Amino acid sequence: MQPLQVRLFAMSSTNHQVRLAARPSGLPKPPDWSFTEEPIPTPSAGELVVGVSYLSLDPAMRGWMNAGASYIDPVEVGDVMRAGAVGEVVASEHPGFAVGEHVYGAFGVQEYALSDGNGVTKVDPELAPLPTYLGTLGMTGMTAYFGLFDTGKLKEGDTVVVSGAAGAVGSVVGQIAKIKNCRVIGIAGGEEKCTWIGEELGFDAVIDYKSEDVRRALREAAPQGVDVYFDNVGGEILDAVLTRLARGARIVICGAVSQYNATESVRGPSNYLSLLVARASMTGMVVFDYAAQFGEAARELAGWMQEGRLLSREHIVDGGVSAFPDALLKLFTGENVGKLVLRMEASE
Amino acid sequence: MQPLQVRLFAMSSTNHQVRLAARPSGLPKPPDWSFTEEPIPTPSAGELVVGVSYLSLDPAMRGWMNAGASYIDPVEVGDVMRAGAVGEVVASEHPGFAVGEHVYGAFGVQEYALSDGNGVTKVDPELAPLPTYLGTLGMTGMTAYFGLFDTGKLKEGDTVVVSGAAGAVGSVVGQIAKIKNCRVIGIAGGEEKCTWIGEELGFDAVIDYKSEDVRRALREAAPQGVDVYFDNVGGEILDAVLTRLARGARIVICGAVSQYNATESVRGPSNYLSLLVARASMTGMVVFDYAAQFGEAARELAGWMQEGRLLSREHIVDGGVSAFPDALLKLFTGENVGKLVLRMEASE
Repeated sequence: MQPLQVRLFAMSSTNHQVRLAARPSGLPKPPDWSFTEEPIPTPSAGELVVGVSYLSLDPAMRGWMNAGASYIDPVEVGDVMRAGAVGEVVASEHPGFAVGEHVYGAFGVQEYALSDGNGVTKVDPELAPLPTYLGTLGMTGMTAYFGLFDTGKLKEGDTVVVSGAAGAVGSVVGQIAKIKNCRVIGIAGGEEKCTWIGEELGFDAVIDYKSEDVRRALREAAPQGVDVYFDNVGGEILDAVLTRLARGARIVICGAVSQYNATESVRGPSNYLSLLVARASMTGMVVFDYAAQFGEAARELAGWMQEGRLLSREHIVDGGVSAFPDALLKLFTGENVGKLVLRMEASE
Repeated sequence: MQPLQVRLFAMSSTNHQVRLAARPSGLPKPPDWSFTEEPIPTPSAGELVVGVSYLSLDPAMRGWMNAGASYIDPVEVGDVMRAGAVGEVVASEHPGFAVGEHVYGAFGVQEYALSDGNGVTKVDPELAPLPTYLGTLGMTGMTAYFGLFDTGKLKEGDTVVVSGAAGAVGSVVGQIAKIKNCRVIGIAGGEEKCTWIGEELGFDAVIDYKSEDVRRALREAAPQGVDVYFDNVGGEILDAVLTRLARGARIVICGAVSQYNATESVRGPSNYLSLLVARASMTGMVVFDYAAQFGEAARELAGWMQEGRLLSREHIVDGGVSAFPDALLKLFTGENVGKLVLRMEASE
């Protein structure tokens, strides 16, 4: 147990955590969170303890805070907030994990996580920086990959529209579609984001929904119609794209960030009858379903990164667990470009 | 030309027609129609003239009256209203059609139609009564058949929900699903319809949306969730079914009769994010796409009818073209049970 003690003594002896204090209505507010402290856990046989280095911030987190059945159990009031994270094994009684190894898992918004190893995968910090395993080589990249290829049935030459195009998933979606010789139209908000996806990522057309009429801009950018729409936002933009579907179009419902904080009912797509006119489909996807194929997809994504064809951008926020509540809000105010990640202080 | 003259002299020499006079807002009103008279046309080489016996009344007609791009060109103001119909060839200069043969085609709301034979198919009045070729052995049956099997990917044992379940398409959908050993839940309005589909057609469960809470009734009738939802109505019922999807559910968007006369914007399904939770799809279908396979499907449907496993019910309205405007409204007030058909007087 020598390595365990050495590492712990070099850090704080306290595990700082963020817990769900109340179910929010609308945007999460300070009283919806509580900050707690616990001693750093000690592993029993078959367990390991991870010192968390980086936390993944995802729009889906807002859904996990609501009561009721969904594709995953809600976070219960009083529980540590669920979050994907990467970190380093700081203590292990688990035969599969050694102290010093780097791992990904749903470690939660806390500095140290006790785990039985289920759902924990090793990552190689030599191959890519740790935050990339939360983004392009993590759930974000997997969502883009399987959403496009499996749900969206992407074909070479398709006209692909992606919303939230400068976000974590959207920026990978557009780049994969470019690699597959598709015409890619990105919808994002504001000049910085639009410049990035147009000039650095090489999307064929960019629509700034904050300053343009999306419907009209789509008519110009996709005169033959849209074959695949990868929807991260819902709301008005989904309705606009519905008016421009090509025959046999596939809409991938990945998320609806514009609706997650709705205090009244969600806005349904009033143009959904375009599905009939275009013989099109709208299909929901959840990335966890593809877990068995993550390794394969990550190898392909990593290959594209090494070839310089796929750029990974992380938007890293400092401040550790205490910065979590404010950092999460950036997703809903549209402040992040690329994958939003929180750096933990305890791991430094 | 002897047969032509004999037949014409036995009937009126005038062709009465109904034309679109104005594009309606909401339900079509009397001033939206005009009644015109023309001499019965005479065929040139390669043409035939059909004396129309029965007209098909379809909710889709309301959509054809609107301007704008859809899956089919709109009916232009001033044109004879489009309608599917069956009738008898009364004059022919077309090598493929002889006087006295019975045919189906888009002959329009008029007593006599001139045709070049395109899209005209022969029907056999010995095999089934003529109105059945507008219903179960016509576009209605084809819609049910291809919507269920192709778009809905029906599998034995599925739990199938159909709305407009006592209507032309819905009643065939439910019966086909029963033949395929599915559990069938029909949603319809009013006691007469519900009794018919429950007791005569043998649906496993029936929900009367006029007197029941559809969401709660579905929870009881489909405790394991819904695998296929065949939607003819849209609106609140679509939203209710979206809350009860089984994993991998398929929603067939065939129509939205509750929305066709909306004067404000169509009500979008605000529960569409259930598609994500259930990894479900919502797909539009248009029956015309399957024209090459109609013969095959009609043979299978006719076989089931002969075995007594598929009942065909037509709701026949008398009165000829002058009764058309009122008859059409029955579709939107929900007065018809089974396939709504208008009997033409000139053909009697």
